[in-house]
Amino acid sequence: MNDIDAHLERYARLTLEVAVGLRAGQRLMIYAETNALEFVRVVGAMAYRMGARYVYVLWQDDVIHRARLQHAPKDSLTEMYEFEANSVNEMAEARDALLAITSGGPAPFEGIDPELIQIESDAIEERRERFWQLLGSQAFNLTLVPFATPEWANRLFPNDSKALEKLRKAMNHAVMLDTPDPSAAWHQTCEILHARCRSLNAKRYSGLRYSGPGTNLEIGLADDHNWSGGASQLENGIRFVADLPTFEVYTAAHRDRVNGVVRGTKPIDVSGGSVEGWSLEFRDGRVVGAHAARGLEFLEAILNADESARYLGEVALVPSDSPVEESGVIFRSTLLDENAASHIALGRTYRRTIKDGEDMEAKAFFAKGGNLSRVHKDVMIGSDEIDVDGVFADGSSEPLMRKGQFVFER
Amino acid sequence: MNDIDAHLERYARLTLEVAVGLRAGQRLMIYAETNALEFVRVVGAMAYRMGARYVYVLWQDDVIHRARLQHAPKDSLTEMYEFEANSVNEMAEARDALLAITSGGPAPFEGIDPELIQIESDAIEERRERFWQLLGSQAFNLTLVPFATPEWANRLFPNDSKALEKLRKAMNHAVMLDTPDPSAAWHQTCEILHARCRSLNAKRYSGLRYSGPGTNLEIGLADDHNWSGGASQLENGIRFVADLPTFEVYTAAHRDRVNGVVRGTKPIDVSGGSVEGWSLEFRDGRVVGAHAARGLEFLEAILNADESARYLGEVALVPSDSPVEESGVIFRSTLLDENAASHIALGRTYRRTIKDGEDMEAKAFFAKGGNLSRVHKDVMIGSDEIDVDGVFADGSSEPLMRKGQFVFER
Repeated sequence: MNDIDAHLERYARLTLEVAVGLRAGQRLMIYAETNALEFVRVVGAMAYRMGARYVYVLWQDDVIHRARLQHAPKDSLTEMYEFEANSVNEMAEARDALLAITSGGPAPFEGIDPELIQIESDAIEERRERFWQLLGSQAFNLTLVPFATPEWANRLFPNDSKALEKLRKAMNHAVMLDTPDPSAAWHQTCEILHARCRSLNAKRYSGLRYSGPGTNLEIGLADDHNWSGGASQLENGIRFVADLPTFEVYTAAHRDRVNGVVRGTKPIDVSGGSVEGWSLEFRDGRVVGAHAARGLEFLEAILNADESARYLGEVALVPSDSPVEESGVIFRSTLLDENAASHIALGRTYRRTIKDGEDMEAKAFFAKGGNLSRVHKDVMIGSDEIDVDGVFADGSSEPLMRKGQFVFER
Repeated sequence: MNDIDAHLERYARLTLEVAVGLRAGQRLMIYAETNALEFVRVVGAMAYRMGARYVYVLWQDDVIHRARLQHAPKDSLTEMYEFEANSVNEMAEARDALLAITSGGPAPFEGIDPELIQIESDAIEERRERFWQLLGSQAFNLTLVPFATPEWANRLFPNDSKALEKLRKAMNHAVMLDTPDPSAAWHQTCEILHARCRSLNAKRYSGLRYSGPGTNLEIGLADDHNWSGGASQLENGIRFVADLPTFEVYTAAHRDRVNGVVRGTKPIDVSGGSVEGWSLEFRDGRVVGAHAARGLEFLEAILNADESARYLGEVALVPSDSPVEESGVIFRSTLLDENAASHIALGRTYRRTIKDGEDMEAKAFFAKGGNLSRVHKDVMIGSDEIDVDGVFADGSSEPLMRKGQFVFER
């Protein structure tokens, strides 16, 4: 077995054992780009060796997809087969395991009109509502993991013959595959994240205050908010890690209680391109000003997706020395980059970040400060220059993060 | 554009224009192995440029598929998602175009118990009955084309650094892509095949008699049989070529009127392996003896699939100088090899090879001499050493093929 094959086997094992938490007898659906073929084959075959009852791969191909967006008539972009819409709904209804692999980042759709991407994506997501609903209520184990491909590497390190090697090395560090026992490293990390959630939940902050270069923002937290992070557990005992890597703890922002300005600390990547040097201004929860040195149209497309996309749904805290940040690479992929820095999400609040939120009617959910939108877009606002204070209901406050580290963990 | 890219574009154009007969505004489903990725991308993107409304690729992966057959519990082999079963049914109901690409041949499943392959395949085909029904009645345009991959090349030419180049060259000759104007060459070939059908249909032979080394066989033709070959045309005017390459004319054998012995002139390839040096003995249509120098178990698996698999459904005539035979390569793929030599098919009769057969009840279809089986397996019995006579209802006969050529075309 050569180095690459050994690497793929090692990564597949971490993916299935820790991230998916595959249980023998489960079916596994793999959602992947064709350029991840070599990894999908290793992980798919290994799943059978681990006792999977059935493995189905739902393939995507960026080249044909891009051709669609370029050449197909606009009125055809909402078209898809019934069976395609049903695929993930059926998987979720059956409580099968889902492994999604991201291997490209956004660049395949560079230069495509964001409106076309949005029309197509809305049509798909509308018909997969049942899937998202079951995903939101943690009905099945699932994970999203990255896989380094030449296309991705060449976008990050153009004209560099070592591009793929560099990306692989950075990614191995980010997912802690370069540690002697990656499974153990992840179990330990998840314990730290769980402990952090317990501390934050005990605090019952009513809000968080961010200050630093270009940032002066206060974010209210939803009533009965709940901090989450690390591994999740299903009722049947299956443990999984929904994102690999994950170094965040997150909860529900209060939809109507966000005020001030915030400057982004990383670019925002979307299907069609990238937003650089951006800032947002909030008043009573609503984004009332958006600026960007480049790609403002993509930011506006997010904000205009629906009325609730202009409000926050999530706030997440990440120490500035996370392995993703340590890797020194901006991956231009939310999965990785959101775990390099504290962030907020425009749009949808994860229902489980508000107590009993999963079964709450929309009106009650809004009353707690939750947000419902078809958008959930993470944008990075943290760095070691940003201080975060915890604000109590009585208006008093205390330092929460300094120089990117949690004060209470010192 | 390099040589390979130019070749792929040229092949994609032939595939879409002549074989699929894609009409602007149609949807296209592509059924392909992941190892054909580079061709699928070119043909998929080109379909959009030609006006396809939507392109969906139904991917198969042999590596994961093999792992299933090796490791999954036997009782799970009938399992599949509803949406998977529905996929091709939905495509056929919508009268979309279908492009199937074969790029591997049978070897990925070498060493796998044929029974397991059969269990899995029966479960899939049972749930795709509607698809096969619509395919049989030519409700939509479809084609099957080959694509040369390194895996395929290395199986045919092991330890040969020029393997892929050799396979590509042979395949280009077989599909006439090495002619100055491949589209024109195919239009001309289809005209010749249509003319041959007209001649044979005018003859109203009651049977064919084969003689040559190891072969002394008389095959009755079904009542009201109809010779077909070349391009097909849908009611809406779409023209397509269901197999690329195709050099056969074919019709319905009479299920109960086959007597004598026949020696195979090419190996029979199946999912699990290959049958070499084989012969069959028929009495009143039924195979009463089967012999093989190697792989007899695969031949027996075909014959035992159901009671009707022991009877013939089709007889096809191919001149021995077809471009496939000229290529000098045994491709170990029915699509190509059946067009190198005259053949017969065990099992199912294509309904359209008997007049009004498409809407006929099974009993009436059998009464005409048709056969219905879940199997349709072509096996090669022709060469330039085999003579074929046409037999008339009154028992008289005339030479039909000599040294592999049609006598009436001389």
